[in-house]
Order: sequence, then C-alpha cells, then structure tokens
Amino acid sequence: MNRSQPTAKPGEPCAYEDAELGFRNHWYPAMFSADVRETEFKTLTILGEDILFKRIDGRVYAVRDECLHRGFRFSAKPESFTKNTITCHFHGFTYNLKNGDLIGIPSDPESKLIGKLKLHSYPVEEVKGMLFVFIGDIDPPPLADDLQPGFLDADVHVVPFHKEEVHSNWRIAADSASEFNHVFMHKDDFLLKYWKQPLPLVEMPKGDNPYEGYVPLEGSGPKGFKDVFREVVPVFEYKIECEGEVGVVRSAFNPQTEQGSIPFGQMEAVLVLPCGLSIGPWGSEPGSLVGEYVHYEWYVPIDETHHRYIIAWGKKVSSEGEALKAEHDVRTRWSYFEYEGFNKSDVLANEGTQRAYSEAGYAFGEKENLSRIDGYCLMWRRMAAKHNRGRQVRYGGKK
Amino acid sequence: MNRSQPTAKPGEPCAYEDAELGFRNHWYPAMFSADVRETEFKTLTILGEDILFKRIDGRVYAVRDECLHRGFRFSAKPESFTKNTITCHFHGFTYNLKNGDLIGIPSDPESKLIGKLKLHSYPVEEVKGMLFVFIGDIDPPPLADDLQPGFLDADVHVVPFHKEEVHSNWRIAADSASEFNHVFMHKDDFLLKYWKQPLPLVEMPKGDNPYEGYVPLEGSGPKGFKDVFREVVPVFEYKIECEGEVGVVRSAFNPQTEQGSIPFGQMEAVLVLPCGLSIGPWGSEPGSLVGEYVHYEWYVPIDETHHRYIIAWGKKVSSEGEALKAEHDVRTRWSYFEYEGFNKSDVLANEGTQRAYSEAGYAFGEKENLSRIDGYCLMWRRMAAKHNRGRQVRYGGKK
Amino acid sequence: MNRSQPTAKPGEPCAYEDAELGFRNHWYPAMFSADVRETEFKTLTILGEDILFKRIDGRVYAVRDECLHRGFRFSAKPESFTKNTITCHFHGFTYNLKNGDLIGIPSDPESKLIGKLKLHSYPVEEVKGMLFVFIGDIDPPPLADDLQPGFLDADVHVVPFHKEEVHSNWRIAADSASEFNHVFMHKDDFLLKYWKQPLPLVEMPKGDNPYEGYVPLEGSGPKGFKDVFREVVPVFEYKIECEGEVGVVRSAFNPQTEQGSIPFGQMEAVLVLPCGLSIGPWGSEPGSLVGEYVHYEWYVPIDETHHRYIIAWGKKVSSEGEALKAEHDVRTRWSYFEYEGFNKSDVLANEGTQRAYSEAGYAFGEKENLSRIDGYCLMWRRMAAKHNRGRQVRYGGKK
Repeated sequence: MNRSQPTAKPGEPCAYEDAELGFRNHWYPAMFSADVRETEFKTLTILGEDILFKRIDGRVYAVRDECLHRGFRFSAKPESFTKNTITCHFHGFTYNLKNGDLIGIPSDPESKLIGKLKLHSYPVEEVKGMLFVFIGDIDPPPLADDLQPGFLDADVHVVPFHKEEVHSNWRIAADSASEFNHVFMHKDDFLLKYWKQPLPLVEMPKGDNPYEGYVPLEGSGPKGFKDVFREVVPVFEYKIECEGEVGVVRSAFNPQTEQGSIPFGQMEAVLVLPCGLSIGPWGSEPGSLVGEYVHYEWYVPIDETHHRYIIAWGKKVSSEGEALKAEHDVRTRWSYFEYEGFNKSDVLANEGTQRAYSEAGYAFGEKENLSRIDGYCLMWRRMAAKHNRGRQVRYGGKK
Repeated sequence: MNRSQPTAKPGEPCAYEDAELGFRNHWYPAMFSADVRETEFKTLTILGEDILFKRIDGRVYAVRDECLHRGFRFSAKPESFTKNTITCHFHGFTYNLKNGDLIGIPSDPESKLIGKLKLHSYPVEEVKGMLFVFIGDIDPPPLADDLQPGFLDADVHVVPFHKEEVHSNWRIAADSASEFNHVFMHKDDFLLKYWKQPLPLVEMPKGDNPYEGYVPLEGSGPKGFKDVFREVVPVFEYKIECEGEVGVVRSAFNPQTEQGSIPFGQMEAVLVLPCGLSIGPWGSEPGSLVGEYVHYEWYVPIDETHHRYIIAWGKKVSSEGEALKAEHDVRTRWSYFEYEGFNKSDVLANEGTQRAYSEAGYAFGEKENLSRIDGYCLMWRRMAAKHNRGRQVRYGGKK
Repeated sequence: MNRSQPTAKPGEPCAYEDAELGFRNHWYPAMFSADVRETEFKTLTILGEDILFKRIDGRVYAVRDECLHRGFRFSAKPESFTKNTITCHFHGFTYNLKNGDLIGIPSDPESKLIGKLKLHSYPVEEVKGMLFVFIGDIDPPPLADDLQPGFLDADVHVVPFHKEEVHSNWRIAADSASEFNHVFMHKDDFLLKYWKQPLPLVEMPKGDNPYEGYVPLEGSGPKGFKDVFREVVPVFEYKIECEGEVGVVRSAFNPQTEQGSIPFGQMEAVLVLPCGLSIGPWGSEPGSLVGEYVHYEWYVPIDETHHRYIIAWGKKVSSEGEALKAEHDVRTRWSYFEYEGFNKSDVLANEGTQRAYSEAGYAFGEKENLSRIDGYCLMWRRMAAKHNRGRQVRYGGKK
C-alpha cells in the first residue's frame, strides 16, 4: 500500500502517477464554517493526515490529531481546560492549539520537552463559509493560488452545500472533471429535464488539435486551465449501429424540440490545482437563458482509495438581501436538483472506476486506452505534474 | 497476495501448488440458464475475472466487465441502446457484445481505436440448463473435454439446483472430492437416515497399492480418473480406545441392522479437470436398491480464498414426461435432502480447512501429514498438474 | 504483517520491539474455570495460536486447534467419541487430548503416522478459579514464576470477573501499566467519587532519579518490579496557563476538601513478566482507610493488534465464609465500579493509542517523545527485554 517515495525537495513537483495521496504543500477545503462551532472539537482525515480542528474566539485552529508523547489520538476523548489548549487524556501533555507548542506535562513541569516539542500546526483560512487547511511544510502561498479564479471575489456569495466520502482515488474524479465528455453519463439526470438544460451528450473538437478549446493558466495565481465550450462541436445525438440494429441516444432534454435554458456555448469550466473545478454560468429558472450561479467542486484526497467530494455554489450579488436570497434558494431548491439530479451520477462513475485503477501491479492509468478527446485529460495531468508543490506521503512516513 | 507467475506458454500446464486462482484455458460452469433472461445483464467473478453476461435472441454472450477506455465497470450501470451492444455509462464507448469489438465513441466517431480495440469476449456454451464459459486465450477445446463423462449424453436430463460461494480455495474442495474418506464427515447427515443409505465411514485399500481402485482417464476427452468402489474395503465401524475408554463410531444409518438402499459397491466417482465431480448411482426411494440419479458438482475458483460450489443432478430419461418428473422430484424433494442433509457438511469441512491453507509463508499443502489413503488425493494433484492447460493469473496481471 | 524473526535459541530473550505477538515460553491466563465445563470444547487465540480446551474428569487439557492431516479446525465441529479424545470431523483422525498423540486413522488403522504424529499439547494449570496455559517449547518453569507475587498464596481468595478483547497491541497496555502517570485519565471516573478515593492526577519523582520508587524483581520467582508510591510526590492539582487563560485540573474526588478512603501512599503496584499487574490495597467501603482487596490484571496478546484484558480481585481470607462474602461482594458490587467506573478508561486509552503504534514503517515506540517520568516505562521495557524467554512468531511460521 505504501509505495511512498518522497519528493526530492519540499515544494518540488512530483509525477501525477505518484500522487495517490494527493499533492503536498497545497491548500485544501476541509469543512464548512458551521461544522466547527465555538469550543467544539472536530477531526478529519485529509491526504492521509488526521487533523483536529477547534474554533477559539471565532477563529479555527488545526493541529495533528495525535499526542507526541505516546501517540494517543486526542479526538478519542478531547480535553480542554482552557479555551486555547488541548490536553491529552492519557498522561495530560498539554499543547497550545494556536501553534502546537507543548506547554505542560503534569508529572514533569520542568521537562526540557516543554517549549521544544511542537505538534504539527496546520494553517487554516476561513473564507466564503468554508474552512481551508494547508497541508505541507513550506511557507504557505496565498490561498487564492490554490482556488478557482473568482471564488474569492468580494461580490461573490458562496453557499457550500455538499460533502461526501467517495470510494475512489481523487485522481479519477479530477481526470473526469478535466474533460467534458464524461457528461455522457448525465443524459438521463432529472436536473436536465427540470431546467430544460440543453447539455450535449459529448463534445467534439472542431479541428485536429484537441486542445484548442483550452486556455492554460500558468502565470501568477492558480495553475490549471480554462475550457471554453464555444470552440467545440456539441453532440446532441449518438447513433449506434450494430449487427443490423440501430439505436439512438439522446439527452433527457432535447433542445431540438423545445426551447431550453442557458446555451451551452456560454459556459466555461476551470480546473485548478490541487483539485478544484468551477463551471458556469449554471442554474436558473427553467427556460431562462441567463445562468445565475457558478458551480464549484473539489476532490480532496482522504487516502489512497477515497476522496471527499465537496460542492458549493457561488453567485454575484450586490446586496445582503441578494446574498440571503441565494442562500435560501440554493439550500431549499437548487442543491436538491444539483446533487440528487446530477452530481450523484459523477459519484457513481468515479466509484465504478476505482476497481480498475486499484488493481495490483499497475501504475495509475497504465491500462487506459485514450481517445483523441482524452487529450483534455492528458493536458490536466501534464499541468498537474508540472505545477504541483510536491508528493504527499503517509504522515511521518519513513524517507 | 499476488505471487503470480504466468505459465511459460499459453496452454502449458502449471504446478498444482501454483493454481491458487485455478487453471486457465478451461471451461467452467458459470450460472444456470434461467439466471440470465433476455435483455438482462448479469455479472460474475470467475477465476478472478469479472464477466458480464447478456442473453441476445436466446443466446448468451459474455465480455469482460470493464471498459477499455478508463476502466468503468459496465455492470455498475449497464446501458444498452441496441440489443447487441453495451455502452459505457461514463463516456459512451460502445461495444458489440457478440465479439467485444469497440464500435463507437460518441465524441470521436472517426477514432482509430474503433475496429481495433476489443473487449475480451468469452466463449459461452449453454447445455443441460447450464451456462459454461471458457476462461483462456487459446482456441477452446470441445466443452466435453472439460466435463464429467456422460453429462452431455442426449438421454440425460440435468437439473441444476445449487450455487453457493464457499470461503475456501477451490483446491481444498477438489482435494476432498478426490478421495472417498472425507465421507467420514457425513456419518450423521439426515440424508443417510432418510434414504437408508449404507454409506461407509471410510474405505480402506484392499492391498498395499492405494491406487488400485482407480481408473485413470488420460486418453482423448476429459482428464482425471474414475474411482470404482468395488476394489476397496468399506469400513462401517470405527473403534477408538484411549486411556481405558472405548468409543465406537457408526453412521446414522446402520446397514448391519436394517436393509438399506443402493449398495455402496455399485457406485462410481469420476473427477475431471478443471474441477468437476460425478458420483452415482445416487438418489432413490428409501429402500430401493437401484439409484436413479447421478450427482454432479463443481468447485469453480472465484478468487484465492473463495470458490463457487455448483450442484446438479442428472437422470437418464426416455421421454419428456420422465424429464419433467425428474425436474419436479429434484426441485421439490431430492435437492433438500441432498444439500441440507448432506453436501452442507462438505461446505463446513472445506471452510473449516481454509485457515490452515491460507497461513502466510506456506505453499499449498506444505503443512499436511498425509496417510497412505491420501494417495488418492496425490493422484488427483498429479493428474491435475499434468493435464491442466495453464495457470490463471489476475486479469491483466503483469507478466 | 509477518516480519517474524524467531529467537536464536528457545528460551533466549528477544527485544521488546520484536515482541508484537508477545513473549514465548511463558504462562498466560486463558479463561476462567467456569468457562470450560466438563465435556465442553472451547477455543481461544492466544499469542496468535488457536487452542482447543476440554475439561476431562475435572482437569482441563489444551491442544492446537488444527488437525495435522489436512488442517481442519477441530472447533468448527468438534467430535469426541471417548472423553479423552478429539476426532477430526473431516477424515476421522483421532488424538489423545491429554498429550496430543495421534491414536487412530479410520481408513488406515496400521498407519505409521499413529504413535508418531503429535498435536501440540499445551500445559494447563488451574488455580484460583483461572486457567493458565503455557505457550512455548521449553520445559515450563513453575507457574508462580510468571505470576504476580502473592497471587497463589493459600489465604488469598481470587474472584476473576472481567475478560475483554481490546483493539491494541498488548505492549501499549503493559507500558501504560508500568507507569503510574496514566492515572491522569481516571480523574473523572465515578469509582473515585463513590469510594472517595484520593487518587492523584499524576506522581512526580522526588529527586532526579526517576527510578527510586521502584524495587526491581530479578531474583528467583517472577521478574519485573514493584512500585512503592511512598517515594514519589503525588500531584492533586494541575494548572494550565496559555495565552492569558488559566485552567485547573482536579480529580473527581478532592482529598483537600473531604476525608477520603485508602491513602495513596499505602499502595504498591507490581508488574511482572509476561504481562501481569497487581495493585493494592484497593477497594473498600467508602470512607474506609483500609483497602481490602488486591487488583490483578493481565494483557494477554491475541494477535499483533489485539490483546485480552483480564481482571481479577484477590482478598486475604481466613474462612470459607469470608471467601464466599468476597465472591458475593465483588460480583454484585465492586466489579461494576471497578470496570465501568474505572478500567474502562484504560481500554479507551489503549485503543486510542493503537493507531500511532501500528503505522507502517515504524518499529514499536519509534515515534515516542518520552519525558523523564517515562523512565518507569523504559525500565519495564528493559526488564521485559532482559528476562523474557523468547519471541513469539506465528504458529508454524517459516524460520
């Protein structure tokens, strides 16, 4: 299971095939703001690391969920005798939650370990109702460098609404997000019918170069690329002929027979490191030609065979009233259509693919047979391999 | 787990100890005819391979249950837009179920992969109400070569009635079937009482040569051997003396005190590669001296620690009326006695033995202490090692 | 999992880090007397070995729970045709339970294996209502050498009352038992409140030498050491200051404000190889200054990640009436307070620590950061490494 080879130097990129636990030295979404309430302890595994979160005077702090003394997992029975500290239930070793410093040992108050030992302390940023944590050893770059462009814009109100542990390596989900053609699986999803959304079955490149629809993001800020759907040919019908039989595949909503909502060509998708996607405009009243939202999602590595699938919607607003309305609409209406009527299919596809990628004796992707259209996926892998900040290995794994 | 070393050449036999996943290039029973109904998809793991079955216009076809593109498991959400095709739910890659040919990619209709890529397509034969599948790479030999002699005879009506996943390597079951003395475990089974069946506790060879009761099958047709029980001494009583205490073991039915059914000496057992046994005559009205049925069973490898135990009964019939009567009698009467009152004990014994054979650091059978009578088992292993057509390794396993 | 390297010679000590399955050639408590009733078979895994127990004419015998012929696990369907024998359900191989000798094969009564093959037979001693079994290859030393001093005294009545499989390696529990400071975790346990028991949060060594409270036991008899609490400074209050906040930790029972029971300084703890602890005096009427009982417990290795936690209380008695009263009081009263109100916390702590010690790539304890006070634990490890009688490897493991 543990074929870990650490990156040569902290911050140096690793191969995509080696990133079974994700890329180290990046920001990842962990939870939603409301998940960690004042005085409450929460624990979560991200990139194989067990992390303990606590909110103190409004701000959330995170430390490694394991005592440095003899390894007790704090979250098995968290004890806090001041708001700023975690005390190990086993022998009372006490740490400052804000920086991880060991500050007390009840049986050895003068111990030289005090002031020397330090729990790993994770940088945390709370923005847009979400908690982001930095998993790494280097000085953290700005959070914005690891986020979808526009997500942090002041006039964007974000409503995070879905978190789920998916039984697939995070790269299966990221690969799928990198290319448009996985939408084939959405053809019967009820979101399309409800919104009269003219989603093609797949897209075809216009010319021979399969990358022409892409705009690379390699300057300052987040790394990845933008997919502009104006440059491709949408396919709304797929005809199958075999042994004299003919079958035709169409989406649940057929734009040829009925006026639909947001035209496909208006949309843009952006996929950035470490594992975030935005797509929009998306979501509107049925029949409306103007999408109101941007869909954000992340595939956060948990371990070699699981990732956490997180979804949020964003909307440009010009007042608190509009923000409250978006909050209300997403929570009481759109989130149901979006997840139950659409993204659930992505989960099924990613889980249905895990077995092939976890078979012993294979490097990631070695068994694939890629078509021209998978150039999209290859481009993502190349971008990811070039711009990531290092390979994650098991916490404390031998080097 | 995967200590796979493939056979040097396809079709060349491998050692019995190396056959933890079974022998490649053989026919195996998969399911019963009624298990795969028109338009229905079924999936099953045999010898470590996941196989998708569909019945089209009466005939059953089988392909590998994994898309060649990016590995989606078709059976997670099978899609069929013509009766002859399977379309991958994920990106729409479409295959001809009859031969595995890739026939369409919705996003890349001119792809060079079309007509070139081919799903592994498994030869299937449907006979006697059962589906047999060929797992291998060579041109399949006749099905009859891998079946118990007589099973395919035109006047034999077969009623398949039991299928079960057993938690033991298939060789534990085959070894047990190869020697008569495992019947010791059946001594209290209620089938014996009901049928007044004079089954010995064990048998003893008549002379010094423990093999004399066997007739090897090494010519054309199935390979294995026949056990003729006339050449052995049946033991109906086993006396134990220990530390002054004496105990006597007898079967539930005692032929010394009451007139029994089919005499033991009339029976014959035949064990053939890859994993099929027949034994008979067997099964009759209580007290009848003439057995009407032949019992067939198979131990089909699923993975290293499980096999599928399949049971069918056959009867020579001379009319459709007799066939229907056999169908009725087996399903409403004999199958209960046979499985619940007898073969269930074999399952317990095989599962109770798995731990010893799966302990780390051991080759198959290395810890055994074989008695003279286990010459039967050794002969089976020698036959199997000589006549099998190759070693099964994990599908797609590195070579 | 199996990184087993056996000890050079039987009886030679192994390193503490290598004892993941415990120490071989020692006596271990297996069950309580009442758990194995006349004619009843019981099975149990100790130090990775599956052992079958039967009581014959009052005395309990134990053999390896696996037939030597083809590995059937007797306990899957134990058959006994005389009181002294176990007969394998599969092929009838029959063994003398008292010494393991193979005494009969029904199909081969003249086999040379009879009188030659021998099941491993485990020495068993039944004392004080408990069954002790010797796991090893050498001539067993006296049971008393592997027991807490005093346990076998004629005037001690023992009431064994708790047995539990704990998900932690046995060494995590033994390490915890070796040092007093784990009592920090008991501070809120309701036993303290009920008994008004003045248990400190932790203890501090009086001088620079952390070992001064210990009396090594290295002469004849059991090996280990005695912890005399008179030589340490009990800590009843632990003050935490962090970022301007102050918190104070105190035990549930505060001896500074109320008259308590048995003074802490009267107690002694003794930890001996292979894995037994005694502590006392302990247990009395609330407010009484005289403890009536001694608490005994053991951490018996089951496999690499589980141990069996066994608890018994002992009391000096001078009549059968007093013994019966102790029996009644412990079973109907003390056992509830002791386990539910106290020792349950030890189980939580040991289980909460298992993850840290089972992470791949680490030797036992490699990640620890030990404080001065952990000299207690290091001393135990040194004692254990010096006086154990060998490393346990998986039964039948390759050498």
